[in-house]
Amino acid sequence: MDYYQIEFEPVGRRGACRADESLLDAARQLGVDLINLCGGVGVCQRCKVQVLAGRVSEAGLAEREALSQSELEDGYRLTCMTFPLEDCKLGVPPDSLSTPLRTQVEGLEIGVSIAPSLRNVDIQLDPPSLSFSQADAENLLLHINQSQGLDAQVVDIDLLRDLSEKLRDWDWRCTAHVQGREVIAISRPGSKPLGLAVDLGSTKIAGYLVDLDSGKTLAAQGLMNPQINYGEDIVSRLTYAMKSPSGREKVTEVVVEALNQLAEDLCAEIGAATEEILEAVVVGNTAMHHLLLGLPVRQLALAPFVAASSGDLDLKARDLSLDLAPGAYVHLPPNIAGYVGSDHVAMLMATAAEWSHQHVLALDVGTNTEISLITAEDEITSLSCASGPAFEGYHIHDGTRATRGAIERVLITSEKVYYQTIEGAPASGICGSGILDAVAQLHLADVLNDNGRIEMGSHPRVRQDGDQPVFLLAGEEGRKEITVTQHDVREIQLAKAAIQTGIQVLMAESGISVQEIDRVIIAGAFGSYIDVPNAVAIGMFPPLPPERFQQVGNAAGMGAKLALVSNKVRTEAQALCSRVNYVELAKYPDFSKVFARSCQLRPYVQLV
Amino acid sequence: MDYYQIEFEPVGRRGACRADESLLDAARQLGVDLINLCGGVGVCQRCKVQVLAGRVSEAGLAEREALSQSELEDGYRLTCMTFPLEDCKLGVPPDSLSTPLRTQVEGLEIGVSIAPSLRNVDIQLDPPSLSFSQADAENLLLHINQSQGLDAQVVDIDLLRDLSEKLRDWDWRCTAHVQGREVIAISRPGSKPLGLAVDLGSTKIAGYLVDLDSGKTLAAQGLMNPQINYGEDIVSRLTYAMKSPSGREKVTEVVVEALNQLAEDLCAEIGAATEEILEAVVVGNTAMHHLLLGLPVRQLALAPFVAASSGDLDLKARDLSLDLAPGAYVHLPPNIAGYVGSDHVAMLMATAAEWSHQHVLALDVGTNTEISLITAEDEITSLSCASGPAFEGYHIHDGTRATRGAIERVLITSEKVYYQTIEGAPASGICGSGILDAVAQLHLADVLNDNGRIEMGSHPRVRQDGDQPVFLLAGEEGRKEITVTQHDVREIQLAKAAIQTGIQVLMAESGISVQEIDRVIIAGAFGSYIDVPNAVAIGMFPPLPPERFQQVGNAAGMGAKLALVSNKVRTEAQALCSRVNYVELAKYPDFSKVFARSCQLRPYVQLV
Repeated sequence: MDYYQIEFEPVGRRGACRADESLLDAARQLGVDLINLCGGVGVCQRCKVQVLAGRVSEAGLAEREALSQSELEDGYRLTCMTFPLEDCKLGVPPDSLSTPLRTQVEGLEIGVSIAPSLRNVDIQLDPPSLSFSQADAENLLLHINQSQGLDAQVVDIDLLRDLSEKLRDWDWRCTAHVQGREVIAISRPGSKPLGLAVDLGSTKIAGYLVDLDSGKTLAAQGLMNPQINYGEDIVSRLTYAMKSPSGREKVTEVVVEALNQLAEDLCAEIGAATEEILEAVVVGNTAMHHLLLGLPVRQLALAPFVAASSGDLDLKARDLSLDLAPGAYVHLPPNIAGYVGSDHVAMLMATAAEWSHQHVLALDVGTNTEISLITAEDEITSLSCASGPAFEGYHIHDGTRATRGAIERVLITSEKVYYQTIEGAPASGICGSGILDAVAQLHLADVLNDNGRIEMGSHPRVRQDGDQPVFLLAGEEGRKEITVTQHDVREIQLAKAAIQTGIQVLMAESGISVQEIDRVIIAGAFGSYIDVPNAVAIGMFPPLPPERFQQVGNAAGMGAKLALVSNKVRTEAQALCSRVNYVELAKYPDFSKVFARSCQLRPYVQLV
Repeated sequence: MDYYQIEFEPVGRRGACRADESLLDAARQLGVDLINLCGGVGVCQRCKVQVLAGRVSEAGLAEREALSQSELEDGYRLTCMTFPLEDCKLGVPPDSLSTPLRTQVEGLEIGVSIAPSLRNVDIQLDPPSLSFSQADAENLLLHINQSQGLDAQVVDIDLLRDLSEKLRDWDWRCTAHVQGREVIAISRPGSKPLGLAVDLGSTKIAGYLVDLDSGKTLAAQGLMNPQINYGEDIVSRLTYAMKSPSGREKVTEVVVEALNQLAEDLCAEIGAATEEILEAVVVGNTAMHHLLLGLPVRQLALAPFVAASSGDLDLKARDLSLDLAPGAYVHLPPNIAGYVGSDHVAMLMATAAEWSHQHVLALDVGTNTEISLITAEDEITSLSCASGPAFEGYHIHDGTRATRGAIERVLITSEKVYYQTIEGAPASGICGSGILDAVAQLHLADVLNDNGRIEMGSHPRVRQDGDQPVFLLAGEEGRKEITVTQHDVREIQLAKAAIQTGIQVLMAESGISVQEIDRVIIAGAFGSYIDVPNAVAIGMFPPLPPERFQQVGNAAGMGAKLALVSNKVRTEAQALCSRVNYVELAKYPDFSKVFARSCQLRPYVQLV
């Protein structure tokens, strides 16, 4: 048997592969997770790569139909149909990669110079004696300021309560951690200064333990936001918190507990203690921010929807009941408005390096979708639109969260349906990206008309179910039936119309036409799983070539990490917020008209 | 019956008095509390006044013996022996006044310009709307900064938790209280800004509720320090706190509770709530300071006796579990050393205006006596001496605290004993000023020799009691016997020797001789009750004319009040501490020799 060396770029995987197996097999063998819905029979046409070097088998009929002439000329091939004839180097376009791999490859790798707000100073104190009877705190301050030209003036009260014993236990040697003019902690010399970055989502919480010296992520974990028991979406959670002071305290308490647990788990991973965490940065939408801090939410939930506080905050961890280092601070980046929170700001900070004086649309898709349009002149206009929980799988007949067995990719031809489930498990439901794909594919297959109506008789799988037509997505051979109902389509229409309206209003406000948009940055977990061409097909995203879209994964978490290690990023976040032109969508004069038109399953209409 | 108009200066009391009653009767009638031990028979010679205008009866034999020729020429008379012959104006020397009246008259009335660290700003906010969707905190900051040119940047987190509701309840009008760049509270417009000043003594706590706008004291209260249950003197209290973390927590907890109760009681007096207290200043010795803050005390109790923290501190009241305004700070002035605390610093700040480039000795007499010598060149040398608890009535056979019935003044002639009890109640024991008087009077009556030995047969009231000679002070006619024992005399000798040694070492260190001392300021409750001539007679105080002594009452409490209303005083306190030359008495080369000599009941020996 012949073996050839196959290399996949830019993934950076290479290895010897059998000559009698397809390039798709080679990819699987090397751990390059290409999208493949049809099982390798040339139908779904998603496993496309570009042959950069080396000879491969001739393109057959299926490929010549799937690929355009120019693609064929440029060496594009379907991996499931192609076999190597010698050592090959293959280029994988982002669209062909499954989400985890794509975000890993495309993920943000922004070089920020590490300049945390915290200074760490190794010192050796002079022990007190009858002739040197300096108080311990002043002895510490004296040595910090002498050794580093700092101007530390204050020792945190909780640190003071431990300081004398620690200094004596450690034989008067320590690393002092100085925040501005305040010593917030001391640690044994040589210990790693740890920071905690948290993206506090309504549904999921992502935490990162970071080495403040190097900026390196030492551990990362995700967990469900336990507040979900008090309301799955933001509005119902706010309603719960508004009902009684004890309700508000409860939702604060559970999320604080979760963050303390998260910190403990992350520290356990690297054998550290939470009291070694010297600073935390938490980003989240304005509601999550308020519920974490125990701030009132009534004025946020009711018009005119104002935050209790929107500027950035540096709070003592103890004032939030978070158990970190004695005097540790929690930094909360600013919010832009009641429904454009610090998670969006963090996303903007994380992607700012990519803007490079172009017209950029940056959005987090979720229950609320926050969108900013940054012009080449660096003007920023932001708004929030209520895209609803359909993309989280709510209000969808067979909807589910993106867990094992959820249908996440759908391809529909005039006769057949192909789909991919999470972890390849038997289909248990359909998650956000799956239902989005399904609606787009149904529209492309002329099962749905422009108004979103399921046309009876348009496809063998369309049938009437009670008072509405449905499309059978899965469930052949005695398995659980999963259908897309007319109601589901309506939900997706409303969701995508909200986003489409938001984008169109932003373009109108900024005087930018669709084609002028150089780049669309899609952030967030769900955003990373969206099939962009499908989203474009139903008009959710503007009709732009695929290469202008960039799916960046959890950019909010990245932004939190950046704020943790760079004081400059914090200053810039504040400056950014102060120059954002915030648009209250509900106040936009033509809102209803634009929204109604956006419900149609067709591309954009320019508003200006 | 004839009546004359009698006026007492500087007390400022006047009224019509009967011509057939003595000036002492007139004084009593007008509420001028002159000292009188002998019951008005011309023996104790304490009720002396100067006739400034008007004719009075001729001086009899008793007066001509009691008063010097120059006193008689200057118009000095004993009020118990003198009757008015027409309207009179009388001058009362401080020594003739009882303590409460003396401190009221002589008490510190220092004009400090009111410039608290807190700014109070009346504002009317713009209510938010869809077109003005400013967050509440930023709305507040905006209006504060616009209206007053302030630079408020931060809203305290506890205030944030209440802010939105209060602003709406108060129709967007409020007074904002700004500390530096932080808004720490808001209140209804027109409410009085309240501050709390506390002198936290080992035995007694004195609290003052102050109007921060006017500097006026609105209410004052004293209470026992409940920590006394965990050790009556400082050392035993520190020992208790050192034994276990729970012990340390306990002593902190009880004093925090006491301060919260004090704040509540003071507020109740004027119909206010503790959350209206916008700032507090607490002064106390270093041990009380540490135990209030929950700081470790082991290093303070053991050589080299260093404080955990000596600089001034501004802590959030909540970090001390004190219930004041949401973001209120507690200011703790600096300590000078392990045994020279912020109460001494506060006393120095309160009396600094009196120094006026003279050589000044300023001392707080207590279980520990802190003494500072300020030279005309403004050099300050300070030390602390362990004068022990005898002056608090401890370790004295019939000793008691200064409560009702305690003998507080003693006059001993060769045959008789005169005494005065607190509130004139039957004698129940002897308090600090009484035992000091007794020892001095016994020495002057040659019952005690210079070594402090009670000479058998020297007085009809001397007798042997078990293994020691004692002097019967009170208890004739079947009442409880109160004696001064040989052991009691030894205790007072040790106590006064400690103070005498301290003063002598300070003079030696500063190169100042006894006669060069222009003024002796005696502060503290006990200090106010000391009979200065008696204290001079046993050598506790330097042999200086009475007019150089000034008893100023609770100057520490006054200093706390000054720090509350004047930021300048705080800055000066810090500056003062940094230039104090602190002397560790135990390290002074001739300490033992000086101390041994100082035990003798005789005036000072100059060390240099």
